[in-house]
Amino acid sequence: MPDPDIRARILAAVDTAFDEQLAFTAELISEPSLRADEADAQDLLYRAMESRGLEMDRWEIDSEELRNHVGYGPSTVSYENCVNVVGTYKPRTTAGRSLILNGHVDVVPTGPEDTWSRSPWHAEMKDGWLYGRGAGDMKAGLVANLFALDAVRAAGLAPTAEIIVQSVVEEECTGNGSLAALLRGYTADAVLIPEPEENMLVRANVGVLWFKVRVAGEPTHPREMSAGFNAIDSAYTVMSSLRKLEEKWNEQRSSHRYFEDLEHPINFNFGKIVGGDWPSSVPAWCEIDVRVAIYPGTTADEAWQELQDCLDSTGLPVTATKTGFYSEGYVLEEGSDAEAVLAGAHREAFGEELRSFTTPGYLDGRVFTLYGDTPTLVYGPVSEAIHGFDERVDIESVRRITKAIALFIAEWCGVEEDTAP
Amino acid sequence: MPDPDIRARILAAVDTAFDEQLAFTAELISEPSLRADEADAQDLLYRAMESRGLEMDRWEIDSEELRNHVGYGPSTVSYENCVNVVGTYKPRTTAGRSLILNGHVDVVPTGPEDTWSRSPWHAEMKDGWLYGRGAGDMKAGLVANLFALDAVRAAGLAPTAEIIVQSVVEEECTGNGSLAALLRGYTADAVLIPEPEENMLVRANVGVLWFKVRVAGEPTHPREMSAGFNAIDSAYTVMSSLRKLEEKWNEQRSSHRYFEDLEHPINFNFGKIVGGDWPSSVPAWCEIDVRVAIYPGTTADEAWQELQDCLDSTGLPVTATKTGFYSEGYVLEEGSDAEAVLAGAHREAFGEELRSFTTPGYLDGRVFTLYGDTPTLVYGPVSEAIHGFDERVDIESVRRITKAIALFIAEWCGVEEDTAP
Repeated sequence: MPDPDIRARILAAVDTAFDEQLAFTAELISEPSLRADEADAQDLLYRAMESRGLEMDRWEIDSEELRNHVGYGPSTVSYENCVNVVGTYKPRTTAGRSLILNGHVDVVPTGPEDTWSRSPWHAEMKDGWLYGRGAGDMKAGLVANLFALDAVRAAGLAPTAEIIVQSVVEEECTGNGSLAALLRGYTADAVLIPEPEENMLVRANVGVLWFKVRVAGEPTHPREMSAGFNAIDSAYTVMSSLRKLEEKWNEQRSSHRYFEDLEHPINFNFGKIVGGDWPSSVPAWCEIDVRVAIYPGTTADEAWQELQDCLDSTGLPVTATKTGFYSEGYVLEEGSDAEAVLAGAHREAFGEELRSFTTPGYLDGRVFTLYGDTPTLVYGPVSEAIHGFDERVDIESVRRITKAIALFIAEWCGVEEDTAP
Repeated sequence: MPDPDIRARILAAVDTAFDEQLAFTAELISEPSLRADEADAQDLLYRAMESRGLEMDRWEIDSEELRNHVGYGPSTVSYENCVNVVGTYKPRTTAGRSLILNGHVDVVPTGPEDTWSRSPWHAEMKDGWLYGRGAGDMKAGLVANLFALDAVRAAGLAPTAEIIVQSVVEEECTGNGSLAALLRGYTADAVLIPEPEENMLVRANVGVLWFKVRVAGEPTHPREMSAGFNAIDSAYTVMSSLRKLEEKWNEQRSSHRYFEDLEHPINFNFGKIVGGDWPSSVPAWCEIDVRVAIYPGTTADEAWQELQDCLDSTGLPVTATKTGFYSEGYVLEEGSDAEAVLAGAHREAFGEELRSFTTPGYLDGRVFTLYGDTPTLVYGPVSEAIHGFDERVDIESVRRITKAIALFIAEWCGVEEDTAP
């Protein structure tokens, strides 16, 4: 850890700029950066990074190389407007270890907006929470990266290693944004991603697959219903079969390190359903969008085969199409220097020990871990109702996480007194 | 029955014009008269009736009186383009009994068109069948009404009672088209509707209700799925409850005249389902379009109350909205003159006795029976796959049904030699 004086200067700098940090987070939340509609939010971040003197880069993420990568998630949307933004801090002196500060700008849909207590795009602060779609997942963290670096520099210090600040797209659906950043050549000695993780460090993380199941039926008039074949009823049979596979996979948890103690680590989600055309026709088709989780060490191909076998076993006219995530899970191996440095920074910021845990949701951490061989610290603030109504992030937690990231930068990258004019 | 000479002339006239009848039916099938898009098909029928010298009427069906009628089915579409067409034959001499020849021009959606062997709007004739959406249900019948009247007149005969030829909309969703025709003042001594009924007469018929069930959920990230409340899973709970009510109603069939011997007269159809927004969000909502059948003698209000109780019993946050049919069933009482005349005409045309049966699908017959107190003969050709793929009608059956209708006209309305220039 940097010496107490430097630590104090950095922590004070976070506090000084914290109102500005919250205001900028609120501004970013007010940009509804839903999938393939992140351009305005990315522009805002581009300008914010550029005004800080970072070396700027932005590019449409699509590429032949991306589409051929084993970790690529098949996209169902055009990538014409899907742009990553990266700003690089170039040190005057290179002495420490380089760092990627990563975050995603895309947010999930709001669901029925009238079920929210306020507009999902109105970032109200109330009772210690900052509200809004993306508040926790993960605009607070994305902005914390930027303000943590600010704080180090506002404290009169200059990091002595390259720091790459990334705002990526596609984290909520394919993971192709971070993968594209890796393939563009951005690497470092460690990666930090302040996803909403309850002030904890992610030790292990599932892989995720998305696919669409289509069941065909045989429509008839309801008066002769038994002659027909109701695709909505069949969809339910398919879901029941998949639920059985889910239970089988959950029963295997004891043989998966870091998952033994979780009650139900593998969740299948039936997130969307559409079927049939007319109340008085026996429905001819039904489609379900499914999200499944898999253990680290299981490849997406292996899981896909097992899912196909499960669907085949129903005996129904059913097809499955990949529609997004097609990713392995990952484990952050214990004992890395990066984790030790984060543990120290966390202790300073929170006054307690850093805890790690296993989380059953997709994280871009797998990109840097599996394909970049880089220790990746997914670590971020307390949130509630991410992907739900009235999503919110704990403001005091954001402050402390920002402090921990700033201290991590100072220790990991090293700092020198900034004597620039 | 008319004397043998007249019968022979009428039957010969049907045969003479039959190719033209099929060609016109094919032309009508090629107009995709889906709900609220019947205008072109109605224009075609208007011109066809007008050219036959009928006294023409057409009107948008919406009215205050309609919407306040107990048999009105709440519509989810605007009636701006929903037009009924009626042509009335005015007799020179009035001696016999008046007649409404009713049919509906609207057809149900096709479902996925690539599952059809040919375009649903291409009315191919093959192996004795005429194909196309609406071929059986009920453009063949609608055109048969017109050509049956033609045949009587082509035989040199003039019916001696008013004959009202109706082409109505909304039969497949609300029944408001025929109801609007009744409310406009069209009444007669009998009604004949050549729906596809396997060359048989409908003795009893269910009522039908349409409604949309919406289940609310509590969305979360799948990583904390047990905290959320999956609206798609809940929708299946609702469907299971409704299936139990369906079974209860089917068990009551022995106490409903004409339904005792049917295996499963009451069918609930889950025709359409839509829910959720995103594969990785636990879905917050799900909507199911439901069609239920009820016995004659049960009012729609009584059934609605039982359905509400059933939904309430799930304990789920569920609401139901009426979206179409809200109709009672009906029985054609035995012993009417109209039925006796049809039995004779059928015997002539088919060489066998007329059989009657109970059908578990909605029919506009209820409008004239319940609210017009008029014997209503729903009687029409053999078909397959109505509401399904490759819908088709048996061509020879259409020929004989047309003959039976023509003979019915001659006997019911009476005829005189047409001495007009």
